Amino acid sequence: MLRTHQLGKLNAEHIGQTVTVAGWVARRRDHGGVAFIDLRDASGIAQIVVHDESQFDHLRNEYVLQVTAEVKARPEGSENANIASGDVELYASEVTVLNTAAALPFQIDEHVEVGEEVRLKHRYLDLRRPEPARIMRLRSEVNRIARNLLADHDFIEVETPTLTRSTPEGARDFLVPARLEPGSWYALPQSPQLFKQLLQVGGIERYYQIARCYRDEDFRADRQPEFTQMDIEASFVEQDDIIELAENLLTEIWKLIGVEISTPIPRITYKDAMEKYGTDKPDLRFGLELTDMTEYFKDTPFRVFQNEYVGAVVMPGGGAQPRRQLDAWQEWAKQRGAHGLAYVLYKEDGEMTGPVSKNITEAELAGLAEKVGANPGDAIFFAAGDPAASRALLGAARVEIGHRVGLIKNNSEVPAEEQDWSFVWVVDAPLFEPAALAEAEGDVAVGDGAWTAVHHAFTSPKPEYLDTFDTNPGEALAYAYDIVINGNEIGGGSIRIHNQEIQKRVFKVMGISEEDAQEKFGFLLDAFQYGAPPHGGIAFGWDRMISLLAGTDSIREVIAFPKTGNGHDPLTDAPAPIPDEQRAETGVDFVPEEDDMTEEVNA
Amino acid sequence: MLRTHQLGKLNAEHIGQTVTVAGWVARRRDHGGVAFIDLRDASGIAQIVVHDESQFDHLRNEYVLQVTAEVKARPEGSENANIASGDVELYASEVTVLNTAAALPFQIDEHVEVGEEVRLKHRYLDLRRPEPARIMRLRSEVNRIARNLLADHDFIEVETPTLTRSTPEGARDFLVPARLEPGSWYALPQSPQLFKQLLQVGGIERYYQIARCYRDEDFRADRQPEFTQMDIEASFVEQDDIIELAENLLTEIWKLIGVEISTPIPRITYKDAMEKYGTDKPDLRFGLELTDMTEYFKDTPFRVFQNEYVGAVVMPGGGAQPRRQLDAWQEWAKQRGAHGLAYVLYKEDGEMTGPVSKNITEAELAGLAEKVGANPGDAIFFAAGDPAASRALLGAARVEIGHRVGLIKNNSEVPAEEQDWSFVWVVDAPLFEPAALAEAEGDVAVGDGAWTAVHHAFTSPKPEYLDTFDTNPGEALAYAYDIVINGNEIGGGSIRIHNQEIQKRVFKVMGISEEDAQEKFGFLLDAFQYGAPPHGGIAFGWDRMISLLAGTDSIREVIAFPKTGNGHDPLTDAPAPIPDEQRAETGVDFVPEEDDMTEEVNA
Repeated sequence: MLRTHQLGKLNAEHIGQTVTVAGWVARRRDHGGVAFIDLRDASGIAQIVVHDESQFDHLRNEYVLQVTAEVKARPEGSENANIASGDVELYASEVTVLNTAAALPFQIDEHVEVGEEVRLKHRYLDLRRPEPARIMRLRSEVNRIARNLLADHDFIEVETPTLTRSTPEGARDFLVPARLEPGSWYALPQSPQLFKQLLQVGGIERYYQIARCYRDEDFRADRQPEFTQMDIEASFVEQDDIIELAENLLTEIWKLIGVEISTPIPRITYKDAMEKYGTDKPDLRFGLELTDMTEYFKDTPFRVFQNEYVGAVVMPGGGAQPRRQLDAWQEWAKQRGAHGLAYVLYKEDGEMTGPVSKNITEAELAGLAEKVGANPGDAIFFAAGDPAASRALLGAARVEIGHRVGLIKNNSEVPAEEQDWSFVWVVDAPLFEPAALAEAEGDVAVGDGAWTAVHHAFTSPKPEYLDTFDTNPGEALAYAYDIVINGNEIGGGSIRIHNQEIQKRVFKVMGISEEDAQEKFGFLLDAFQYGAPPHGGIAFGWDRMISLLAGTDSIREVIAFPKTGNGHDPLTDAPAPIPDEQRAETGVDFVPEEDDMTEEVNA
Repeated sequence: MLRTHQLGKLNAEHIGQTVTVAGWVARRRDHGGVAFIDLRDASGIAQIVVHDESQFDHLRNEYVLQVTAEVKARPEGSENANIASGDVELYASEVTVLNTAAALPFQIDEHVEVGEEVRLKHRYLDLRRPEPARIMRLRSEVNRIARNLLADHDFIEVETPTLTRSTPEGARDFLVPARLEPGSWYALPQSPQLFKQLLQVGGIERYYQIARCYRDEDFRADRQPEFTQMDIEASFVEQDDIIELAENLLTEIWKLIGVEISTPIPRITYKDAMEKYGTDKPDLRFGLELTDMTEYFKDTPFRVFQNEYVGAVVMPGGGAQPRRQLDAWQEWAKQRGAHGLAYVLYKEDGEMTGPVSKNITEAELAGLAEKVGANPGDAIFFAAGDPAASRALLGAARVEIGHRVGLIKNNSEVPAEEQDWSFVWVVDAPLFEPAALAEAEGDVAVGDGAWTAVHHAFTSPKPEYLDTFDTNPGEALAYAYDIVINGNEIGGGSIRIHNQEIQKRVFKVMGISEEDAQEKFGFLLDAFQYGAPPHGGIAFGWDRMISLLAGTDSIREVIAFPKTGNGHDPLTDAPAPIPDEQRAETGVDFVPEEDDMTEEVNA
């Protein structure tokens, strides 16, 4: 080793010792012919005192130094309580420059002023900053904690292939041309779903993997073309077993940041979540439930409310919003594809104003505040029309209100005991949704049917729908569970279909022909012939989960070398054009010569 | 859970309890109106006794059963010491068929008679066999042990990108078309080499990852297009630090099979390995060193031995080989590209026979046995000519001899304390080799120079060659180390170049132009400007290492879903043709329209 000690671990115990340390010059101050250097390594910072002026030229920012020095107590009054080594300083007897550094594109500092593109282009400098370094360490710890817990539960880690077949998971596959089989392609897996099910057929019983997954999606903010999933599957389990395991995992992981999750984590049905929060990813850090007003307004003269659904959500203290803010809400709603956001302002003096108030009856207006739970000074927002779209609008308004009125804390800014965390399981989701809806949401509907799977094609119907899910697909509920944290879905799983006949019936509802099914995942159907055990599992969106844990806004912050929008990597400049020879080699332009056989016959 | 207990964990302590178990019917015997079932789960096997004849139809091989039963002691004399549950049997009160099974393509048994292709097509059945299941569990344990050891040494796990730029590692890249940047491609990494070095520039200091790597190679036996590497890199380290860490890792891992590795592991220089064993991957489980006979035969009248190099290896007990076997050796040599294998037979009675004995002088013959260390009854094989080729031939003959005369044990067939293991570090390898040689060995020489890197382009010369490695590339030694186990190179690493100028000089020797270097890994050269620390690391071929540990011949046995030759997966049938629409979507056929700009100008 080029050092005897790490900088951040030096303290008063080392006083009097001669140590050799190595690291980067973080800061230099000169003071009466003496240079004071903050030298930084992965463990932290210590102050080096250099008296030898011939060395001063070597003490530039981000130079890499090896320093032999005597550890001394800092003069009384100059201790620095902010760093672990703050009681000592190192009197350098020898300074060796291990490497120099050119002028940096940005300073290695807690606060960078440059844009993300520049940071990512020089990610190797960005990672020297305290916050990115902390996040990389946290991520590694999360992996360690999770793996050890799973091992303690007899789970075994199995690595599944990434050069494989297309998996029908609702997104586009990345493809890899196979040079040795020109015209044929591998697909990078959207998840290890098929393999983890095959491992259950194979009697592995308890599988996990921190797996790289790939989805070739159009640009959506905060998505990555490659991402990491904690993938878990087990045999002979029921929903409660997987939920309990997942709660154990989350509990251990959140302890890393000093937060105690109280278990069991509450559950809400999909139906309740949609009705009360307008989303299947409810943020329960605050209340403000939606109120279903359809019945309330069933005889209303107001044409807009003569609709399949009318709902409302209250904005506490929103009654005094100036016109400009109310207009901004209309803009906000229009950007979400709605016509606008109807409202009633409940003034402090008890007066009800706003356009809606003039259109509904006096009785409707009189009972309104009590019905929706509004107090004087609040605003009441309405949506009416298609229930799904209206609830989605109100659900989004609810979250927006939560932010605007300060009901949602920024956890990264407060100590663990003051942070707000809401964990909730969303259960009993529908098995199928209309394919048109999935496509409208940007997913690729698997199959040609009117219905497609809400989770994926291998999700079991709940036992009570086993007979009817294909005659009445819209009613069937799935044996599925999603874990939602602060309004983010960070994991989801299900009990799978282990019966070949049920699997075929599900494919049929989704409009996947037997031929297609055989072509695409015949190997899974084949496997199910040979004694597939009942099984189920879960997968966590690891990047997203860790970004919540780390208190960052973007999953890019928890990925060592992330890509920006459109899947571009500012650091390596990938993807890149390739030379013609390399293209030729891939076999991608291979055209089978149809007369090959004729030639052979004639030869 | 669908069970209360695992089968393999039932024992006399459970007698009298009612348990519910689940698993696969491994075997059924009928005996006086009673069916005895060996029921199997991941933990092992237990015997179920079924009296209810109405259940008998359900007790077919590989049916999945849930059984509620009372645990009873087996009748005296019928205990089965071969299984953990052998003292008890389970009297079934309720048998539920969780799934049926069609007739299997092969039996789930320790010995399968079908070919590998069939096994891999039904790998989910193959994995139910004891040996593949054992290997999957062993692999998971290896990962666990290794990760925990690295965490204990403050290493952090970082996941590096797999959709990235080409890495120049001496093989072809797999490429992925980027739909969102038509005409551009990602490359799948041959290793995380560049990223792990960037992480050192980023101050991570101690990195590891069990990383998936990709090489698009022509068919070579026992290679996989995707494989797993234990990848390690650290800053401020020297060769001995990495070697010590690697020895710790190997020691902990080999303990899993009850083998104690004695450390420090011996080291041999590349030069010594080539001279004594004819290979840089010497198998030191046995002696039989090559003898350099060049000097000995310097005045020989035998034309064949009037050569740049003459060497010999002894085959103990080989003196009595019949003509047929000696002919077979000639064939063996010819298949390796040699003209043949000259030999002298040293008969039990002291006579020296064979063609060579007639061509050399009497004095040469008289001193031969002592010179090569042969005893009466041995054979002496010779090779002469180009030193590298001759040594390679003798080295291969040495290993072949080791097998034929029983000096090499099959470790999988003997208990740990009787197994033979040879661990050796090969150090001081040349920095460069002639590019023509690398290409002859099937590698892609990076760059257009006469020389290419033996390890890779980022390997540092040893300090004493820093001034001369570019003026005298053939002499320079690399700061590199390979770990060889029983004649298999299972890991290799080096101290890296951290100085931009040295890196540029190495590229120059390899004929990588500045423009090319900037184009291919300019980001690494850029990074090296900003204070790169001295660093080094190692990577283990994890599949190969685990196959040695598991006592299997093929790395395919330690991979859950391996591919066969040519990168084909018999299970999923990947790679596969894709529909035209999917091809169109990849953007692979995108042709930039050259007159786009003209049109815009004219518009």
